[in-house]
Amino acid sequence: MRIAVDAMGGDYAPGEIIKGSLAAAREYGLEIILVGNEKQVRSGMGGDNCNSLVDILHAPEVIEMGEPPAVAVRRKQNSSVVMAARLVKEGSAQAFVSAGSTGAAMAAALLQVGRIKGVDRPAIASVLPNEKGFTVLLDAGANVDCKPHQLLQFGLMGYLYAQKILAISAPKVGLLSVGEEETKGNELTLSVFPLLKNSGLNFTGNVEGRDIFQGTVDVVVCDGFVGNIVLKTGEGMVAALFKMFKEEIARNWLARLGTAVALYALRNFRRRLDYAEYGGAPLLGVNGVAIICHGSSKEKAIKNAIRLARESVENRLVEAIQNCTEIFKIRGLEASSEQGFNECGDSRNGDLCAGGGTD
Amino acid sequence: MRIAVDAMGGDYAPGEIIKGSLAAAREYGLEIILVGNEKQVRSGMGGDNCNSLVDILHAPEVIEMGEPPAVAVRRKQNSSVVMAARLVKEGSAQAFVSAGSTGAAMAAALLQVGRIKGVDRPAIASVLPNEKGFTVLLDAGANVDCKPHQLLQFGLMGYLYAQKILAISAPKVGLLSVGEEETKGNELTLSVFPLLKNSGLNFTGNVEGRDIFQGTVDVVVCDGFVGNIVLKTGEGMVAALFKMFKEEIARNWLARLGTAVALYALRNFRRRLDYAEYGGAPLLGVNGVAIICHGSSKEKAIKNAIRLARESVENRLVEAIQNCTEIFKIRGLEASSEQGFNECGDSRNGDLCAGGGTD
Repeated sequence: MRIAVDAMGGDYAPGEIIKGSLAAAREYGLEIILVGNEKQVRSGMGGDNCNSLVDILHAPEVIEMGEPPAVAVRRKQNSSVVMAARLVKEGSAQAFVSAGSTGAAMAAALLQVGRIKGVDRPAIASVLPNEKGFTVLLDAGANVDCKPHQLLQFGLMGYLYAQKILAISAPKVGLLSVGEEETKGNELTLSVFPLLKNSGLNFTGNVEGRDIFQGTVDVVVCDGFVGNIVLKTGEGMVAALFKMFKEEIARNWLARLGTAVALYALRNFRRRLDYAEYGGAPLLGVNGVAIICHGSSKEKAIKNAIRLARESVENRLVEAIQNCTEIFKIRGLEASSEQGFNECGDSRNGDLCAGGGTD
Repeated sequence: MRIAVDAMGGDYAPGEIIKGSLAAAREYGLEIILVGNEKQVRSGMGGDNCNSLVDILHAPEVIEMGEPPAVAVRRKQNSSVVMAARLVKEGSAQAFVSAGSTGAAMAAALLQVGRIKGVDRPAIASVLPNEKGFTVLLDAGANVDCKPHQLLQFGLMGYLYAQKILAISAPKVGLLSVGEEETKGNELTLSVFPLLKNSGLNFTGNVEGRDIFQGTVDVVVCDGFVGNIVLKTGEGMVAALFKMFKEEIARNWLARLGTAVALYALRNFRRRLDYAEYGGAPLLGVNGVAIICHGSSKEKAIKNAIRLARESVENRLVEAIQNCTEIFKIRGLEASSEQGFNECGDSRNGDLCAGGGTD
């Protein structure tokens, strides 16, 4: 399997990106194509220059964080992220990974690789730790203003992701709202509720903010504005909590005595919360595997993102979504028990789209 | 000062509500009117029956959590929350406090006490701990679908709250969005940005989810759908983190050695995060002081909510908002440097509405 990595994207590019790529190549036996400034990448590889699993593809341009994504992607056809996406389009790679500008990675995926037929808007799926395992939250920021049928599609794609990658046989899907009752929500979620209810997905109803980290459901559906704020609120809260916790320890001599021990426990704990453990967020709905990493990704995050790319390819995630083409046809329809995913099987037993499936 | 307390609202009503009220009456020398089933309240007061600071007003009805708020408030005119709100309307109390259904408390406040002239939609202001102090987040759930001028009004009310109650001379106001740049956001926030920018408020631009707990600004403006989700995400995250942390400690013999010490530190820490420390969320824009408490409020939360009610009355928060009537007239206007709060002084030096102020 060949995976293209944008060597120039991210706060620690190219150094940490190269390290993570080399580690993944060694550990998983994958062929990695590092796309970026050849001189810099070669220099960053140091003694690993002869690693037969890693190729370098020279990309003379880089898209910077501040550039307007769509414009930059169109103009900089020879930028690392666009060239990495193009490898997927051409079939020279099965997936691409980028820790650069999220907007640019999305635009490159859309313009080069394209959408899966029937998918209206690709969504970023963020995988968050909960008390029991993981929660897939989508959309985590690709689409700030959404239509009801788009959230229905997010629900389906999140369901397939949880099934194929998290290996949950019949994932529970919840709609993020302000109360459990069907009548609670804003205009958007009130319109989405009946669509999800009649979809045939294993929809358990509305969930609230507190459910995300409690693992009440496996998939949480929301628009990208809300999803992005939830994600960053959680991120900021963990950072603030650890800071406040350290202050409390520093303030108190008795607590200080236990610091070494507490820090030991905290290390394990923090690992459980660390985004780097999961590596990256897949862009679902694109006609190929695209993994978007946190801008501050280091070696471990990149390595894990590449592992996630491999799992997505191996478990045929894109094909699973493609096979739901029929389902994606429902756009802007009023909810009805006649319509929706039921056409394609009832997901409560985990057999969504089983009829058309490739596996 | 007389403060009406809904004795029947909340998961621990009337027992904990009574305890908190008695504690507040004793500690702050306030006159408390406990509104609720007289027999139950008397029985709950136990030996404190002769407390001269506490009156009981018999309310034969109770609004339950599941009832549709507006309907219930109209039908149950003799419910504890409606009667508590009526005391404020009639001038028999200066504030009311309820830990019952948020919707019912809001409806009671709106229907009995009414809105401040010019305020389109009252908002729930939630006060969250941050690394440095507190962040006022509003709207925290009163209005799920909002118009741009309503968010502008939330910004103004939050500003006045931070100034009057948190004693910040020129509070910094931020708009919750998905990126710092003016161009980042959804349809709503993109429309609100220029309104806030030209408002004369101390507006610092967009903030992201992570800023809420970092204390980047003093006031975070958002619609009630987003605000409610942020609030509950934070709440759920703290709960999940503590649970995971305890699991880590239990899993590890070395960490267990430090448990006693760690728990000691955690107690102080948890107090810093405890909603009960702040007590309640004011409903801003109502023509009187209304404090809404968490449903699971116990003695301490109720006592602190009553203290917050007292501070709101003493610091003339409602009058401060009333004095901005002129400002509230701007509704649905396009942003322009000629319009907005500038008419009434520039807030960057903390003198918003100084001309018309009562203090």
